[in-house]
Amino acid sequence: MSADISYDPRTGGVNGEVAATSDAEVDAIVAAAAACAAEVAATPPSERARWSGAIADALEAARDELVDLADSETALGRPRLEGEVARTAGQLRFYAEVAVEGSFLGATIDHAAGANPALARVNVPRGAVAVFGASNFPFAFSVLGNDTASAVAAGCPVVVKGHPAHPLLSQRLGALAKEALADAGAPEGAFGIVHGFDAGVRLVESPQITAVAFTGSQRAGMALRDAAERRTVPIPVFAEMGTVNPVVVTAAAAEARLDEIASGFVGSFTLGTGQFCTKPGLLLAPRGSGAADAVAAALRDAAPRGWSLTQGIADAARTGVGELVDAGAEVVAQVDGPDAGWSVASTVLSVPIDALEPGSRLLEECFGPVALVAEYEDADALTRTVDALQGTLAAAIMAQGDSDPDLPGVLAELSAKAGRVTVGDYPTGVAFTWAQHHGGPWPATSDPTATSVGAAALARFTRPVTYQSVPDAALPAPVREGNPWDIPRRVDGRLVLP
Amino acid sequence: MSADISYDPRTGGVNGEVAATSDAEVDAIVAAAAACAAEVAATPPSERARWSGAIADALEAARDELVDLADSETALGRPRLEGEVARTAGQLRFYAEVAVEGSFLGATIDHAAGANPALARVNVPRGAVAVFGASNFPFAFSVLGNDTASAVAAGCPVVVKGHPAHPLLSQRLGALAKEALADAGAPEGAFGIVHGFDAGVRLVESPQITAVAFTGSQRAGMALRDAAERRTVPIPVFAEMGTVNPVVVTAAAAEARLDEIASGFVGSFTLGTGQFCTKPGLLLAPRGSGAADAVAAALRDAAPRGWSLTQGIADAARTGVGELVDAGAEVVAQVDGPDAGWSVASTVLSVPIDALEPGSRLLEECFGPVALVAEYEDADALTRTVDALQGTLAAAIMAQGDSDPDLPGVLAELSAKAGRVTVGDYPTGVAFTWAQHHGGPWPATSDPTATSVGAAALARFTRPVTYQSVPDAALPAPVREGNPWDIPRRVDGRLVLP
Repeated sequence: MSADISYDPRTGGVNGEVAATSDAEVDAIVAAAAACAAEVAATPPSERARWSGAIADALEAARDELVDLADSETALGRPRLEGEVARTAGQLRFYAEVAVEGSFLGATIDHAAGANPALARVNVPRGAVAVFGASNFPFAFSVLGNDTASAVAAGCPVVVKGHPAHPLLSQRLGALAKEALADAGAPEGAFGIVHGFDAGVRLVESPQITAVAFTGSQRAGMALRDAAERRTVPIPVFAEMGTVNPVVVTAAAAEARLDEIASGFVGSFTLGTGQFCTKPGLLLAPRGSGAADAVAAALRDAAPRGWSLTQGIADAARTGVGELVDAGAEVVAQVDGPDAGWSVASTVLSVPIDALEPGSRLLEECFGPVALVAEYEDADALTRTVDALQGTLAAAIMAQGDSDPDLPGVLAELSAKAGRVTVGDYPTGVAFTWAQHHGGPWPATSDPTATSVGAAALARFTRPVTYQSVPDAALPAPVREGNPWDIPRRVDGRLVLP
Repeated sequence: MSADISYDPRTGGVNGEVAATSDAEVDAIVAAAAACAAEVAATPPSERARWSGAIADALEAARDELVDLADSETALGRPRLEGEVARTAGQLRFYAEVAVEGSFLGATIDHAAGANPALARVNVPRGAVAVFGASNFPFAFSVLGNDTASAVAAGCPVVVKGHPAHPLLSQRLGALAKEALADAGAPEGAFGIVHGFDAGVRLVESPQITAVAFTGSQRAGMALRDAAERRTVPIPVFAEMGTVNPVVVTAAAAEARLDEIASGFVGSFTLGTGQFCTKPGLLLAPRGSGAADAVAAALRDAAPRGWSLTQGIADAARTGVGELVDAGAEVVAQVDGPDAGWSVASTVLSVPIDALEPGSRLLEECFGPVALVAEYEDADALTRTVDALQGTLAAAIMAQGDSDPDLPGVLAELSAKAGRVTVGDYPTGVAFTWAQHHGGPWPATSDPTATSVGAAALARFTRPVTYQSVPDAALPAPVREGNPWDIPRRVDGRLVLP
């Protein structure tokens, strides 16, 4: 049981540390969460929206202090981090609105008819859940990020595992949330936070934890899932992991605007020093388009310079480039990072398309500002390559206008591999709105139906229960005849709006 | 690779056999299914409803022949089997109607607004799926049962593993479905069937299979899930398994009508020779109510006599009673089955409530006409016992009127353990309507959000894809601006009915 050390990526120096949570403390925090689960579940979403709103307000009020702290631990820079605080507050309010709207409850009522009994179905909160945030979005996907915000909105007490890449910020955000929730009148156990690797393991193994949401690497996500499967009562781990996020350039687009595409691709894969789960890691362009040279030139032109979030990420990016070369890729441009700290070079590699075979390292993520470029001979070759790709969070198509003849075919192929397909936009940038899906086929996620961003994020934290021939007064509020929560419902097969 | 032998449970004699499907045949059937997946997915639900309707019509037209065949392999009796054919046809039509209504597509459109791009989210069919039916409902949960009907409705080609407890019927139903689908103009690969244990394993391991639906024992379900997890690309196994399905009698109900309850309980746990996944396996009644004696008397009075579906089930029921006795239960009444064939005794056991501890054999299913009765001292003792129960598909409360003071507390406790809670009704009997949920916390299912009966059954066979900044003409039909499939959608956050 060792402390989480906070480092400054710009220098590698130590900012401070956060003590690990003891086994007894973890147990007490989980017990407090479980003890208030029924109360949180029965609290109307409009009241829980006040809780989320209180956290959002507190975040915004403490913005400058939080951004300073986050920048000292992540080196992501103030402008980006200020935007992220605003986004995180917006997310908290958005998921609360989604809960108030009430469709996430799936309230469905069949009155008794003929031989069929009266049935009322509603999604009930699972109970206390655990959240493991990501290193790369210290606000938006961490302690108070999408997972926590959607779990609270859905009616689940949350126990967060603080992130070791920003332990001081994690601790501060935890304290801020606890204070805001207490002021808003939420039960004591509605939110808790633990620190340290062992505490995280104990959290997943706690019998009273009912589900886990995770954002991070495939290795860590799969380890958590395995631990959850070994429990006496297995629980789901909704792991959102990193992927390659291919970008396909059509023949017409390559002909018309290759330099613009190359420049946009560089901007996207080096954004945040390449530390996005939606970073585009592979550009597929037509044979003879000169895409690799164009991207190389754009990279030298942009000359991005940034730090990795951790020493481990910097090392893995360096090692990863070597692995890609060993697997058949060739470095065509490399721009060194800063001289000090956890610096990482931005790198473009070109690779013969035939090397992109199932099982190859070339088709696995290399986290950091690293991307591959390959050229396809024709539509058949592109189809074979897309078929070989792993499942991915996102994929992008650079086409030339709505009537680009290659668009429908490429769109259909990428849709089979990705949770989100964009046309014209790069995959980085994940709006938190009703129609978002931030998930995708394995290994993008452990469950391709789950999303960690967008209105459907709440669905991970509920399970349906059907009440048969239960007297109206004994039913949960969402399915009582009088519709006290004023939500959309399906009654006798027909959707009824409030 | 050995044939599936068909036996007559009434005599143990052999009816015939069905040859196992070879590896090459399995591969060809899966390849045909995968080859038409995109076509099936793009077919409007109204057209797929014609396919399902054609199968339903063919089932009804062949009813007498099918019932004869089923009865020779299951000994479930003609009246029950005739009802099951009607139900199965009804299920096929119901899931098709659910698909036509279109809410299962989750169509969601966010128009571009400010910094947010245009997003369109829709649930797309997963692709070819595998179905492993159950022994105990040779029509309603087998080759053409809930899983197949909901998968076809959702837009997935289906490959069924024929059930070894009714191989001749499986084969006949497979041929009937293929013929009906061909006549209705469905693609050749939209439905396939394989036979034999090895063929089932190969099916789950086939790279082109995208999901598995299973109904049956916990052992078999977990084995399938483990196989699916070992694949290069893991796929979900939606396993609906057997559970104990407790029935709680309140003090007021025991006082008012114990004999009636005992008689109803016997009727429910011996229905179909106890071979229901919703069979109530445990009655919890107030201390001193004399519930065990009442149930024993009701059993002797009813004197049910039936056969097990297989030799294995008959043996396991006998062995199970011995295991329950070893774990602390005592037989209070036993009624022998028929003299010949796979006969099984109907058995009631009483057990001290303190023996119902986590990990005890007493809390695991005993498939067959076997049930336990235990008496609780007070509300606290009942709470402790319910806490100790495994997750379960269904639970029932026998209360005395809507104002029974014990009802709210017991309902809340059982809701935490069950996918469905009934008041007054026994758990057997699962209507296929919009509000049904036939699932439940582990080990009732491998995924407590999944249901194999009711409108939500389709959800297992889709995954969401979000299309970002995609031109309208290139979008899938459900999210095109003009709403060509005429379905309910969420547009800019607001539900819009067609």
